[in-house]
Amino acid sequence: MNKESFSLSEKIISRAYADQASQSRRQREKLIKALISNRRIPKDGWDSVSIELFLSEIASMDSNNFMDNVGVGEREARIFSSLVSERNYRLGHGIGRSGDISAVQPKAAGSSLLNKLTNFMALSVLKIGIPETKDCLVLPVATGMALLLTLIALKSYLKSDDRKYVIWPRIDQKTCLKSIVSAGLELIIVENLLEGDELRTDLKAIESKITQLGASNVLAVVTTSSCFAPRAPDNVIEVARICKKHNVGHVINNAYGLQSEQTTKMLSTAHKVGRVDAFVQSTDKNFMVPVGGSIVGSSDRKFIETTSKTYPGRASSSPLIDLFITFLSMGENKYVQLIKERSELLIYLKSRLSSLAQSHNERLLETPNNPISCGITLDTFSREGLKRDCSYLGSMLFKRCCSGMRTVPQHIKKEICGFKFTGYGAHHDNYPHPYMVCAAAIGVTKVEIDSFILRLDKTMIKFHLQQNPKKSLTVELGD
Amino acid sequence: MNKESFSLSEKIISRAYADQASQSRRQREKLIKALISNRRIPKDGWDSVSIELFLSEIASMDSNNFMDNVGVGEREARIFSSLVSERNYRLGHGIGRSGDISAVQPKAAGSSLLNKLTNFMALSVLKIGIPETKDCLVLPVATGMALLLTLIALKSYLKSDDRKYVIWPRIDQKTCLKSIVSAGLELIIVENLLEGDELRTDLKAIESKITQLGASNVLAVVTTSSCFAPRAPDNVIEVARICKKHNVGHVINNAYGLQSEQTTKMLSTAHKVGRVDAFVQSTDKNFMVPVGGSIVGSSDRKFIETTSKTYPGRASSSPLIDLFITFLSMGENKYVQLIKERSELLIYLKSRLSSLAQSHNERLLETPNNPISCGITLDTFSREGLKRDCSYLGSMLFKRCCSGMRTVPQHIKKEICGFKFTGYGAHHDNYPHPYMVCAAAIGVTKVEIDSFILRLDKTMIKFHLQQNPKKSLTVELGD
Amino acid sequence: MNKESFSLSEKIISRAYADQASQSRRQREKLIKALISNRRIPKDGWDSVSIELFLSEIASMDSNNFMDNVGVGEREARIFSSLVSERNYRLGHGIGRSGDISAVQPKAAGSSLLNKLTNFMALSVLKIGIPETKDCLVLPVATGMALLLTLIALKSYLKSDDRKYVIWPRIDQKTCLKSIVSAGLELIIVENLLEGDELRTDLKAIESKITQLGASNVLAVVTTSSCFAPRAPDNVIEVARICKKHNVGHVINNAYGLQSEQTTKMLSTAHKVGRVDAFVQSTDKNFMVPVGGSIVGSSDRKFIETTSKTYPGRASSSPLIDLFITFLSMGENKYVQLIKERSELLIYLKSRLSSLAQSHNERLLETPNNPISCGITLDTFSREGLKRDCSYLGSMLFKRCCSGMRTVPQHIKKEICGFKFTGYGAHHDNYPHPYMVCAAAIGVTKVEIDSFILRLDKTMIKFHLQQNPKKSLTVELGD
Amino acid sequence: MNKESFSLSEKIISRAYADQASQSRRQREKLIKALISNRRIPKDGWDSVSIELFLSEIASMDSNNFMDNVGVGEREARIFSSLVSERNYRLGHGIGRSGDISAVQPKAAGSSLLNKLTNFMALSVLKIGIPETKDCLVLPVATGMALLLTLIALKSYLKSDDRKYVIWPRIDQKTCLKSIVSAGLELIIVENLLEGDELRTDLKAIESKITQLGASNVLAVVTTSSCFAPRAPDNVIEVARICKKHNVGHVINNAYGLQSEQTTKMLSTAHKVGRVDAFVQSTDKNFMVPVGGSIVGSSDRKFIETTSKTYPGRASSSPLIDLFITFLSMGENKYVQLIKERSELLIYLKSRLSSLAQSHNERLLETPNNPISCGITLDTFSREGLKRDCSYLGSMLFKRCCSGMRTVPQHIKKEICGFKFTGYGAHHDNYPHPYMVCAAAIGVTKVEIDSFILRLDKTMIKFHLQQNPKKSLTVELGD
Repeated sequence: MNKESFSLSEKIISRAYADQASQSRRQREKLIKALISNRRIPKDGWDSVSIELFLSEIASMDSNNFMDNVGVGEREARIFSSLVSERNYRLGHGIGRSGDISAVQPKAAGSSLLNKLTNFMALSVLKIGIPETKDCLVLPVATGMALLLTLIALKSYLKSDDRKYVIWPRIDQKTCLKSIVSAGLELIIVENLLEGDELRTDLKAIESKITQLGASNVLAVVTTSSCFAPRAPDNVIEVARICKKHNVGHVINNAYGLQSEQTTKMLSTAHKVGRVDAFVQSTDKNFMVPVGGSIVGSSDRKFIETTSKTYPGRASSSPLIDLFITFLSMGENKYVQLIKERSELLIYLKSRLSSLAQSHNERLLETPNNPISCGITLDTFSREGLKRDCSYLGSMLFKRCCSGMRTVPQHIKKEICGFKFTGYGAHHDNYPHPYMVCAAAIGVTKVEIDSFILRLDKTMIKFHLQQNPKKSLTVELGD
Repeated sequence: MNKESFSLSEKIISRAYADQASQSRRQREKLIKALISNRRIPKDGWDSVSIELFLSEIASMDSNNFMDNVGVGEREARIFSSLVSERNYRLGHGIGRSGDISAVQPKAAGSSLLNKLTNFMALSVLKIGIPETKDCLVLPVATGMALLLTLIALKSYLKSDDRKYVIWPRIDQKTCLKSIVSAGLELIIVENLLEGDELRTDLKAIESKITQLGASNVLAVVTTSSCFAPRAPDNVIEVARICKKHNVGHVINNAYGLQSEQTTKMLSTAHKVGRVDAFVQSTDKNFMVPVGGSIVGSSDRKFIETTSKTYPGRASSSPLIDLFITFLSMGENKYVQLIKERSELLIYLKSRLSSLAQSHNERLLETPNNPISCGITLDTFSREGLKRDCSYLGSMLFKRCCSGMRTVPQHIKKEICGFKFTGYGAHHDNYPHPYMVCAAAIGVTKVEIDSFILRLDKTMIKFHLQQNPKKSLTVELGD
Repeated sequence: MNKESFSLSEKIISRAYADQASQSRRQREKLIKALISNRRIPKDGWDSVSIELFLSEIASMDSNNFMDNVGVGEREARIFSSLVSERNYRLGHGIGRSGDISAVQPKAAGSSLLNKLTNFMALSVLKIGIPETKDCLVLPVATGMALLLTLIALKSYLKSDDRKYVIWPRIDQKTCLKSIVSAGLELIIVENLLEGDELRTDLKAIESKITQLGASNVLAVVTTSSCFAPRAPDNVIEVARICKKHNVGHVINNAYGLQSEQTTKMLSTAHKVGRVDAFVQSTDKNFMVPVGGSIVGSSDRKFIETTSKTYPGRASSSPLIDLFITFLSMGENKYVQLIKERSELLIYLKSRLSSLAQSHNERLLETPNNPISCGITLDTFSREGLKRDCSYLGSMLFKRCCSGMRTVPQHIKKEICGFKFTGYGAHHDNYPHPYMVCAAAIGVTKVEIDSFILRLDKTMIKFHLQQNPKKSLTVELGD
Repeated sequence: MNKESFSLSEKIISRAYADQASQSRRQREKLIKALISNRRIPKDGWDSVSIELFLSEIASMDSNNFMDNVGVGEREARIFSSLVSERNYRLGHGIGRSGDISAVQPKAAGSSLLNKLTNFMALSVLKIGIPETKDCLVLPVATGMALLLTLIALKSYLKSDDRKYVIWPRIDQKTCLKSIVSAGLELIIVENLLEGDELRTDLKAIESKITQLGASNVLAVVTTSSCFAPRAPDNVIEVARICKKHNVGHVINNAYGLQSEQTTKMLSTAHKVGRVDAFVQSTDKNFMVPVGGSIVGSSDRKFIETTSKTYPGRASSSPLIDLFITFLSMGENKYVQLIKERSELLIYLKSRLSSLAQSHNERLLETPNNPISCGITLDTFSREGLKRDCSYLGSMLFKRCCSGMRTVPQHIKKEICGFKFTGYGAHHDNYPHPYMVCAAAIGVTKVEIDSFILRLDKTMIKFHLQQNPKKSLTVELGD
C-alpha cells in the first residue's frame, strides 16, 4: 500500500491505527531498502511476514505476472498447475540469459533481482570466514556439477589447451572424481599418508606429480577441505603454496566446510600465502536448504565472471529461492550461532562416542584435524568367525532410523570411471581398522546425539547377541 | 518496495527493467487504491498475485506481526502452529471489539481494514440486485445464527417488550425455525396454499394472524425467498405491504436468493412498496466460499448498526477472509456472468428432467415461481406393493455420488422444537405426490447436469429392476 | 499408498527402501488410529507432515472432493477461489446440520470427523484441569456468542419461562454484559468488594439478590473466573454453593482461565461442592489460535446436548480446523509445559514490575488471588496539575508497540446497554488508584517481559519529562 | 487412514458415511496404484486433492520426515526455514546419488520414487509423438546444460578421443553454441540456405564438412528442430541419414519441438531412416512449468544410462517436482488437446498478422516449414531517413507489455565465444528484410493474440507518427 492508500484507509480505520500500521509497513520497507542497499545478509533474520511480502513484490516484477501482459513468444512462463505456480511464488522465468547465468532477464526483473540479491548475500556470508573472497556465484546445481563447471571455466580462463591434468588427493566419494572425468580432464590420484589414525595429504607426492607431468600441462590440483574422518581435510595451505610456486590452478572442494570456523580459517590462510582459484561449497550442507545448489567463491572477480559465462542457457531459480528465503530468515547472527553450537556439539559427540566405544572394547579414532566428524574402531565387529561384518551393524542402525552414520569395512575393491581402488571407503589402500564414522553437522542437536548414542549402544549389543548369543548375554546382564 | 528501493534496484537490474517492474507495481497499487477509495467490488477480478500481495500488506498492519511488538496482555494473537498461522495469512485478532462487531480494533488495523472492505464489497454486491440496500453486515456465522441475531436486534430496535410473536410461512427446513425459537420468540406457523403443483404463501392467513395476535405483539413476519420446489419463494412483495400496513417487522430469509435475478428483483420491489427490515443471505450459497458466513442487508442504516452492536464480543475473521479473497478474485463481471449462466442452466435442467421423467412415466412439477430448483413426481417409485419407497432411490443416488438432490416421500411426521408437522419435507400436510427435487445453483455446469441425468436414468431403471425384475427388464429393452 | 502400491514400488526403488518407507508410513497410520481410538489429545505433538497428511485424508472424505461427484443441490461446497480452497484444506461444508451443530453431515464425512475429533480432544484437555467435565462443545464463535448460546440453552434446559434474571458480579468488559442482554435476559449487576488492593465477589449481595428476586425467577448467576487485576477472579466455589442451595443456574465465564492451574482447580472444586451448569472458555486465549472459537464445558452431558441443538444451522469449520491442528501439533505434554512456564513468568513479571514501580515512586498492587495478571499504581501519573493523565502513558506505550497492557484512570463514567457505570474500567465505583495492568498469558516469554519493562521505564521517564521538564531532568540524571 | 482407522471412524461418523468416504479413498489409492503400475502419464488429469495427498505420502517416505529419525551425517535434509520446507513439500534430499542421477537414494525413498515416476511419465509423453524413444532422462537443468551433458556423455559413449568436432547448422541463439564450446568441443558452423523467405539446412555443406574433417574425428552433428521463423527447423531427417551413412553422432536440440506434431513426426522419421543419438527438450517450453528442467530422450537405452552416470553428484528435485505435479494434473488428454489448440492458433495468428501487415504495407514471411512461429517484414520501419529503426518498435512493444515477440534488424555483427557473426539474429549473413517474429506456443490463447494484434497495430501507427508526424496523421485518419 502506498501513501495514498494509507491515507484513504484513515477514513476507514481511524488515523491513529492507520498511522501505526503505516509505521510498521515502513519498517519492513526499511528492511528491504537496507537489503538492496547493503547487499549483504541481514544481521538479524527477517520474520516470515516480511519475507513473503518481499517475495510477493518480487513476483509482481516479473512480466508473466504483469496484469496486462500479452505473450507471443516461445516461453512466457505460463504455468499450467496452480500448485506449481504457488510453490514457486509465481516465478517462472528461472535465472540468467542464454549467454550468462548472472545476466539480468528483461522479462523477469523480479527473478533477476532475487538472483542478484542471493549472490550478494552469499558473498557476504563467504566473507565472514574467508575475507579474501571477492566474488561468488550461486549455482542451481549441486557441488558435483559446480566443480565440473568450475574446471571447465578454469580451462577457458587459463587459455591453455595443454592443461589437461588434474591432480587429486584421494577421497573415496564418487562425485568429485566424476566431475573431473566428465569435464574431459585426465585424473591423477595421489594417495593419502597415514599419520596415527589420521589420513593426511601427501604434499611431496603432489609436488612431484606436478614436476613429473610438467606444470604447464596441469590444469589444477583439486583438494578437499571437508571430509569424513579419519581422513583429514587436505592441507590446502601447503597445496596453495605449491600451486603458486608452480603456477598451477587450485580448486578447493569445500563441500560442507563453510560451517567450520577451523576450515574457513584454513581457506583464508591458503588465499594469503598461496594460490586458490576457486572454492566450491554446497548450499544444502552449509545452509540447511534442500539439495540442489552450490556456491563457487573466488578471490578473483574475473574468474567468477568467466564461470558465469561458461554456464550455457538459463537455469532453475528454485535453489536460489530456497537460499534467498533462508538467508533472510536466518540472518548473520543466527548463522554464526549455529556454527558455534555445531562446533561445541562435535566435542560432545566425541566424548559420548569415546565412552561408548570403551564400553564395547573399541576406541575413538584420533583425528584432531577433522573439525566436523569423528569415528570409532569396529575391530570387534569384523573379527574372523563372525557371520556378518560391520556393514551389517550399519544396516541395523539404518533400520533403526539412524541416518548419516557410515560403517567402513576393510579391503573393499571398487572401480570408478576406470580407476581401481583398494580399501574403498577408507580413503586408503590399507586402513588398519574397520570403523564407523559420524558427524556433527550444522543443525545437529544434543538430543539427537543422545538418541544416537543410545540406539548405537543397543544395536551394538544386539549385533553381538545375534552373532554370539552366549557372550552377548553377559553383556546384557552387565548393562 | 518503495521508490527508494526501486531506485536502488536500478543499479542492480538496470533502469529499464526496474522501471517496467515499478510500473507494474504501481498498477497493483492502483488496484488497492481503487478498492479503498471506491469501496466496492472491483469490476474485473484481481489476479492471485495482487490478492496475496494485498493480504501480506494487511497482515503486516496487525500488531502481532509488528516487527518489535511486545505483548503483555491476555490475548496477543500468538499463534502456536505455523500451519495455522499461514492458513490465516498470519491474521490472529479476529474482527470486532467487545461492543461492536464492526468496530475497528486498535491492535489490528489490518484485520479491521479487511473487515471494512469486505463489508463495503458485500454492500456493493447487494446493491446490484437490490439497489434499495443502504447498509449490510457480513457475519462470520451461517444464515441460521444470522437470523437469530437479526431477530434479537429487531427486538432491541423496535424497543417493545410486547413484540414476542413471529409469523412464519411454513418451510420444512429446521434452521430458520430454530433461529426463531432460540431467539426466545413465539413461533406462529402459517401453512402454504397448494396452487397447481406449487405451494404459495397464504397472505390472507398471515394478515389474519397479525390481527388475531394484535399487531403490536408481533415482532415480525419471517419470509423465505429461496427454497426447494415445489414450494415457491414467499410472496415477499405482498407480505411487505401487509407488514407496512400493520406496522409489523419483516425479515426475509434470502439464504440463496442473491444468485437469482428474479429473486433480487422481487426483494427490490418489496422494499419499494412495503416494509422490509432486513434480508439475510448465506455467503457460501451465493458466493462459493466454505460454509460459515452470511450477510444481513437492510435499507435502514440504523438497523444494521443495531445488529452490529448486538453481537457480543469479537469474532472469527476466517469467513471474511474467504469472502474478501473471493470478491477480489471474482469481480463484478464474473459474478454477473455466473448468475446469468446459472439461470440458463435451470432451463436446461428442467428440459432434461422433463424428458427423463416422461420416459419413466413421471412428469416435471410445474413450479414457474421457483427460479433455482425444480422437481419431478415419483409416483411410480412409491406405489403400494413396492418393498422400498422413493427414499431408497435417494440413497441409491447418494451412493452414486449424486449430492444435493432430494427425494421427498409423502406423509412423514416430525416434531421439531415442540412443533408437530405432517407431510414433513414437502412443506405441506398433504402434498399430492412423492417427488424428487434438484437445483441449478451458482457454479453448476452443463457437464454436471448431463452426468446427473445419466446417473438418474440408470438408477431409476435399477430401482425398478430390484423391485420388480420382470417389468424392469422391459424398461431396459425399451431404453 | 496402500500395500499394493508399496509392493509395486519395490520394483522401482528396491525392497529395502520401500520397506522402510512403508514402516514409516505405518507409524503415521498408528498415530491416526490412536487418535481415532483414544479420542483424546496425543501425549506428544505430531509433526507437520503427519498433520498435513491426515488433513489431506480428511479432505478426501468430503463429497465435494470425491473424484466423480455430481452436485445438483443448492450448496455443494463449490469453492470459487483456489486460494480459498487451499487455505481451508479443501473443506467447504462447514460443521453441523440444520438441527444440531455436532451432527454428522452425510455429504461431509471428513469435516464431521474433524469436528468430532476436535471435540474429543478439547474434552480431554478440559479434563486435565477439571476432571468433573463430562462433555463439551467446541463452537466456531468467540466467548461472547458462546455465552449467549449457553444462556439460551440454559433457559430451554431449565424449562421455565419465569427465569429471566441473571445475576452478575460486575466486571468492566462489555462482552459478557452484552451476551446476557442480547440473550433477552434481565441483568442484575452486583458490585465488587474492595479488600486491600483487590476486588472480590460480594457473596452476600448475590445471595440476597436471589432471595429478593425469587430464586425461581433467576436463570443463573454468571461469574467470571479470569480477569485483569486488581479484580480477583470471582469466588466461584462459594457462588456454586449458593446456586446449589437456591437451585439457581450457574454459568462461569472462564475466558482465559484454562491456562491457570489455580483457576482450573477452583472450577474443579466448585463442581464438587456446588452447582456449575457450564463454563465457557476462549480457544484463542488458552490455545494460541486466531480469535473465533470457544469451548462450552459441563459436567452434565444433557446440557451440552441441549446447547448443541440450540445452535441453529451449520457453522464455519475454520476455528475448529485451527484448533484441530494446534491440539495435534502441541500435544498434552507441551500444553502442560506452556502452562507451567506461564505461571513462573507471572512471578517474574511481578518482581520486575515491583522494582520498576518503586523506582518511580509507585508500587505493585497486592492481588494474590489473580493468577494471570498484575498491576502497579499510577498515582504520580495522574496528579493534579499534569496536562495529561495516565491514559496518555497508555497511548505512549501503544505507540512503542507494547500491546496488551492497560492503563486505567479513575472516575470514568460509561453507559452500556442502558446500564450506567462509575469508575468504569476499574470494576469499582471508586477504586483508590489509577493504575496500569498487564498479564503473563500463555505463550509469553522472558525476553518479552524484559523488553516491556525496559520500554515501560523509558516511557515513564519520558512522560514526566514532557509534563514537567525540570523535575524529569533530575530523574534522568539519577537514572 | 488404513482399514482399522476407517472402521474406528464408523463409530464416530456412522457406517454409511465412513463407507462412502472409504470408497472415495480407495479410488484415490487406485489412481496411485495405476500410476505406479502403468508407469505412464495418466489419461485424465488428477485433481489437486489427489496430487497433494500423494505428495504428502511421498514426503513421509523420506528419512528426514521419519518420525524418529536421528541424523548424524553431513547432510540430513535438515531445512532451516519452514517456508522453504513447505514449498518443497518437505522433500530435502534432492535426486540421484554421487554416481548416478537416476539412482535410488537409501535415505530418500520418496524422492527417489518421485524421480522415477517423473521419468516414466516423461518417457510416455515422448513416446506419444516419437514412438521410437526407448528411454529418457529428466534433468533438473535447462536445455543448455542438458546439451552440454549429452555431448559429454556422447563422447564417453563413443569411446573415441579423436572425435572432437561438432558440426552445427547456424542458429542465432547463444545457448546451444555455448553448450558445445563449454563441453570442450570444436565448433564447426554451417550457414543456412535462403529458399524464398525461409532459411533451410545446407545438407551438402554438412556432408562435405564431415568428409573434410574426417568422419572419425566428428563427434556429432547438432541440429535444431525448433526455432524462430524465418529459419526453418533443421532437416533432421536428411541429417540423420547423413550421420548414419558416415557413422557420426547426431544430437537434436528439440527445445520446444515436442509441442508440435509436425516436429515430433519429423523426429520420429529421422529415427527410422537414419541416426539420432539423443534429442533434448525443455520442460518449461513444452509443459508449462518454470524454467529449469529438460528431458534427454533416446532410442538407445544404453546412451541414457551413460548420460545418467555422467552427471556428477546429486541434484535439485525441484524441477522434477514441478513436472511431476504438472504431468499428474494435466494428463495425456489435456496435453494432446493443448497441442491441437496451439496448432490451430498458429493458423489464426498467421492470418491476423498477414492482414495487419498488409495494412501497413508489409507482408507475412512465407515460412511453411516452421510450425510454431511466423513473422512479417519490417521494411518500412527501417527505411533510410528514419531516426530509429525496427529495434525501437520492439522496445515500444516491450513497454506495452508485449513479451516474446522479436524485431530483427539487418546487418548486426556479433562475436560469441570467438565466433564472428554477420546478420546476427537473422540466422543468415544477409537476410533480405528486417522483420518481426512471434510464436503460437503451448498455452497461448486467442484472446492474447487479439490483444497483441491490437497493440501491435497501435504501436506501428505510433512509431510512424513519431518518426514522420505528417504522414502518420494520414494513416490515423484512414484508420
